[in-house]
Amino acid sequence: MRALHWDGQTLRLDPAYPTPQATAEMALVRVRLAGICSTDLHLLRGYMGFRGVLGHEFVGEVCAGPADWLGKRVVGEINFACGSCTVCHRGLERHCPSRRVMGIVDADGSFAEYVAVPVRNLHRVPETVSDEEAVFTEPLAAAFAILEQVHLQPDAAVVVLGDGKLGLLCAQVLHNVGARVTVVGKHAEKLEIVRRRGLHALLVSDWRPQPQADAVVEATGSAAGLTLALAAVRPRGTLVLKSTVAQEHTLSLAPLVVHEVTLIGSRCGRFPPALRALAHKEVAVTPLIAAVYPLPAGVEAMHHAARPGVLKVLLRND
Amino acid sequence: MRALHWDGQTLRLDPAYPTPQATAEMALVRVRLAGICSTDLHLLRGYMGFRGVLGHEFVGEVCAGPADWLGKRVVGEINFACGSCTVCHRGLERHCPSRRVMGIVDADGSFAEYVAVPVRNLHRVPETVSDEEAVFTEPLAAAFAILEQVHLQPDAAVVVLGDGKLGLLCAQVLHNVGARVTVVGKHAEKLEIVRRRGLHALLVSDWRPQPQADAVVEATGSAAGLTLALAAVRPRGTLVLKSTVAQEHTLSLAPLVVHEVTLIGSRCGRFPPALRALAHKEVAVTPLIAAVYPLPAGVEAMHHAARPGVLKVLLRND
Repeated sequence: MRALHWDGQTLRLDPAYPTPQATAEMALVRVRLAGICSTDLHLLRGYMGFRGVLGHEFVGEVCAGPADWLGKRVVGEINFACGSCTVCHRGLERHCPSRRVMGIVDADGSFAEYVAVPVRNLHRVPETVSDEEAVFTEPLAAAFAILEQVHLQPDAAVVVLGDGKLGLLCAQVLHNVGARVTVVGKHAEKLEIVRRRGLHALLVSDWRPQPQADAVVEATGSAAGLTLALAAVRPRGTLVLKSTVAQEHTLSLAPLVVHEVTLIGSRCGRFPPALRALAHKEVAVTPLIAAVYPLPAGVEAMHHAARPGVLKVLLRND
Repeated sequence: MRALHWDGQTLRLDPAYPTPQATAEMALVRVRLAGICSTDLHLLRGYMGFRGVLGHEFVGEVCAGPADWLGKRVVGEINFACGSCTVCHRGLERHCPSRRVMGIVDADGSFAEYVAVPVRNLHRVPETVSDEEAVFTEPLAAAFAILEQVHLQPDAAVVVLGDGKLGLLCAQVLHNVGARVTVVGKHAEKLEIVRRRGLHALLVSDWRPQPQADAVVEATGSAAGLTLALAAVRPRGTLVLKSTVAQEHTLSLAPLVVHEVTLIGSRCGRFPPALRALAHKEVAVTPLIAAVYPLPAGVEAMHHAARPGVLKVLLRND
């Protein structure tokens, strides 16, 4: 099969990569559409030391596996957990210490014609959700993870820093639960996407942070964002770290202790709330699509996605 | 009056420091017993740029002020808030942006014969609570602050790192709400204090951290403690930062995001729960007393308190 493969040195379209096999526990999914995430770009810089087929956002159809799944249109959770350890038993499969992660840790991903996914990770896509919407399930679930971790009061004042893909999704999810959301970003045209949904949005150049937000979501992807976030969170407020870049910089803990701030690292979420939100058209996702490339143009698509300020680039497997 | 004064260069017992005056809002308290906190030692190294009379832990009796308070034995909350700003109105007086803090920010403290305290900060000490117990109200309230900030499940597995004054208080408070507490420290004799209360305690040399604790309280006062704490907290667990030293070092955020850990800065608590716990003899505090000095020997007492491993040193105003 065709697959976009990273060997640690070179990213290339392999025209004859071995097609994965279905097993009792793993379904084979024919990929219809896959999304490029900032994490994919980090992997090319050495993150996690990954080697293999990239990609962890996809929608496809089951072409081999249990009979009741055959032909079904699906998305799949990306953490492949053991299901039997104490971490899994407390419902934290996404943190299973022996997990593999699709396209990130020891498991081939979705930038290919086919991808193997544990059957228990699959979720059917409602008919009312298009492929172009369903492919956002994974990043939208990551936005919903905030609601698992933070108990937001109705009417909470929330600042979302960053108008990238994840920032715009987080902002809409928090707006939908009643928070008074302000999105702060650098791109007028991106801010317009959420402004059309009724959110307050402004350019960072027009923003004067005051320590008044009940919660701040840091989704800028830059180290400077964290400093801004700390300037905007109120005493005893909550700062949610969504930026992958957070893994690379350091933080003085002074304001954290003095203002008794709660700092929460936030990564993957569960898929069902995201699928429900897509089915009910509660979150605008298709305006985030910047471009769609055919799978064979995957390298070019990755270059496009890496340009500053580009929103979601998709790969279509025709 | 006599007062232990810090001018930014020298700590000395001033025999003729001006006695503060009571006003409509400020009561004058004759100090009976005051406690030396690690923060006092940090102030001598420049923390907060404080100049004035040190001390924020005390028990005393009101000698000037409103009639219904006269002669009453009291303790006093240390944050002197404005009471009228939006932060105060939401019950966060301890974070009032224009607050003064007794013996720490712009307000003279309790290492003196008398101290001025806002009337609304005063709390009567129950008769069943001795002076030697009451003087622990402030640090014990700081331990109770954890329960304001973290919703601990009954039966939660909690590790308290550090067997200093604050660590031993935090450990007992968390034990009392049903948590399965393990105290990890460096001093067998200090660990014995909480072991006698039924807590599990062990030497750090005998401890092999596993990422399994629902919550870890970092109260070591050393930068290395934070690294240990991160090794002991489970995915999606909570790490409470109680160490003042936390203000001086930096932290890589990598494990925080990957394991979705919640990091909570924790400082001052409310006095009533601490006073109730003292009245009900639920927390052993007097075993933490290392020495009691008369106020005129305050400089010597501070030197004693600064020795490594020393627990609580008190100043008595006879």
